[in-house]
Amino acid sequence: MHAWTGSPTIGEAGELAALAAILPRLTASAARLVGPGDDAAVIAAPDGRLVVTSDSMVEGPDFLRAWSSPYDVGWKLAAVNLADVAAMGARPTALVVALAVPRDLPIAALESIADGLRDACAAIAPGCGVEGGDLAESPVTTAVATAFGDLEGRAAVLRSGARVGDVVAVTGTLGWAAQGLRWLARGARLDPFGLPDGQQASESVLRRARSQLTAQLRPSPKVGHAIAAAAAGASAMLDVSDGVALDASRIASASGVRIDLGEAAAGVLDAAEDHAFLATFPPDVPLPDGFSPIGAVVAGSGVSLLGEPLDAAGWDPFRRA
Amino acid sequence: MHAWTGSPTIGEAGELAALAAILPRLTASAARLVGPGDDAAVIAAPDGRLVVTSDSMVEGPDFLRAWSSPYDVGWKLAAVNLADVAAMGARPTALVVALAVPRDLPIAALESIADGLRDACAAIAPGCGVEGGDLAESPVTTAVATAFGDLEGRAAVLRSGARVGDVVAVTGTLGWAAQGLRWLARGARLDPFGLPDGQQASESVLRRARSQLTAQLRPSPKVGHAIAAAAAGASAMLDVSDGVALDASRIASASGVRIDLGEAAAGVLDAAEDHAFLATFPPDVPLPDGFSPIGAVVAGSGVSLLGEPLDAAGWDPFRRA
Repeated sequence: MHAWTGSPTIGEAGELAALAAILPRLTASAARLVGPGDDAAVIAAPDGRLVVTSDSMVEGPDFLRAWSSPYDVGWKLAAVNLADVAAMGARPTALVVALAVPRDLPIAALESIADGLRDACAAIAPGCGVEGGDLAESPVTTAVATAFGDLEGRAAVLRSGARVGDVVAVTGTLGWAAQGLRWLARGARLDPFGLPDGQQASESVLRRARSQLTAQLRPSPKVGHAIAAAAAGASAMLDVSDGVALDASRIASASGVRIDLGEAAAGVLDAAEDHAFLATFPPDVPLPDGFSPIGAVVAGSGVSLLGEPLDAAGWDPFRRA
Repeated sequence: MHAWTGSPTIGEAGELAALAAILPRLTASAARLVGPGDDAAVIAAPDGRLVVTSDSMVEGPDFLRAWSSPYDVGWKLAAVNLADVAAMGARPTALVVALAVPRDLPIAALESIADGLRDACAAIAPGCGVEGGDLAESPVTTAVATAFGDLEGRAAVLRSGARVGDVVAVTGTLGWAAQGLRWLARGARLDPFGLPDGQQASESVLRRARSQLTAQLRPSPKVGHAIAAAAAGASAMLDVSDGVALDASRIASASGVRIDLGEAAAGVLDAAEDHAFLATFPPDVPLPDGFSPIGAVVAGSGVSLLGEPLDAAGWDPFRRA
């Protein structure tokens, strides 16, 4: 199941057969007005403003076939885009997906990507679905999604709204996705689940390993919490994808403040890909369900941990040596 | 100018420097509410419905560095997406662009792609601009755009609305993009312009060759004509990208009619990538400016030329041998 090899391939079956295999697996979004099959789709934007974001997954830099199944790639592609929409305080309504794949990719792998996209939408943002896209040929499997969201009358929550005195809070589990990546590097796999050869572990370690692999390969950002944060009056918010230190520094920089992180952030400062939501709340706003305090907005610039300045230079995909 | 090689490369300069080089070159769209720099952009969708499409250009299958400059790639990526939006009868409002590029790509090439995107928007759909996107690493240069359009209160023009008795008309020059491709294959270049080594040609041949190369590398779909067609009451419309025979067959199939093409289509049935607009109009609707009659909607199925049935099996990017 969920294999990268097999037949028939898309080169054998052709583009029309591939589309005929993919499209019925997708669930229509509640915002669909005109679905796939015309020059473009038409989706509802009842608010009159549309939140739009785009994120990519490229084989090699962003995923490895040995670690991620096609289903995982579809799931994660949807998840990271839905998280960016929700980080603005919007409810995700639809995705369009451009796939560029080699001719020897099995039709079954395309179906698994579609299943992952569909299941991630259903799990993370019910009502959201794929409303079109593009299928192209490439020597390198590349998946790009563009996601849309409706603000439902709310103001967009930007990175620039944090004010001195605000509470910094987070929803989602920090550090687990990075632990999942470590498990993968050591030989663990999610589907079928297994630790590296010969490794013994207690039930609780196995459960945790599986959760950490899932956090890495099939993240489930708490989109409902992010929308609730916007409704409650969050002053700033973002999707924590590059580690809480670097992402907090982005709010600090955009808002002209310092963010002082507390002890809960200590072990997970650089842990990437959690797709947790980091938000700031005015002191009179009760934290919405799911948010835990993790720091405070103070005067100054940059990020500190328990008052000690941090260097949050961060990760640059192009400069890793 | 507009070169694929040089330094500094994005690997040397890093992602932040690359974004700092690209973003100031782009013109904000008139629909911008929140521009690049947050987790997502926010664009205006005043109609309450949004037209959405996505199209890709992959190095190798879709463009060659020897034939297309980075500027050409940016231009054409915008153009093909704007054409799909306009084919629904919508006014293009914004684009988001995901680029996946090798680490050895020069920053100057990224700048040229951005310039091409900007200039194509200004030329083809004034007021439209790039409102965000994604920059990723890939061994294969890949550019994906998602374009948005506003219907301004009009009904979307689908492929399924053609009725027996309608007039079939086209705006744009059929066959020139394919001629441009032939010029490229024979060694002609657009920028700097030149025919194959040693070839002599009259002024009029040179002018035509340059126009045909431009039609292939920097197409300028008549977006204003397409919007006018929708406003005038076109019953069906699409962007002619795979040749008028195959694209007419798509309207025929979706509408349950036959399209009988006239003599004007005879030499250009399979000529791809014109990004002309093919539309059907009820007989009582005067053809809008720029549209020329090219056929008639008749009872039956498929496409015919002067009454003789055509086989419009079409082109499948995955099955070419």
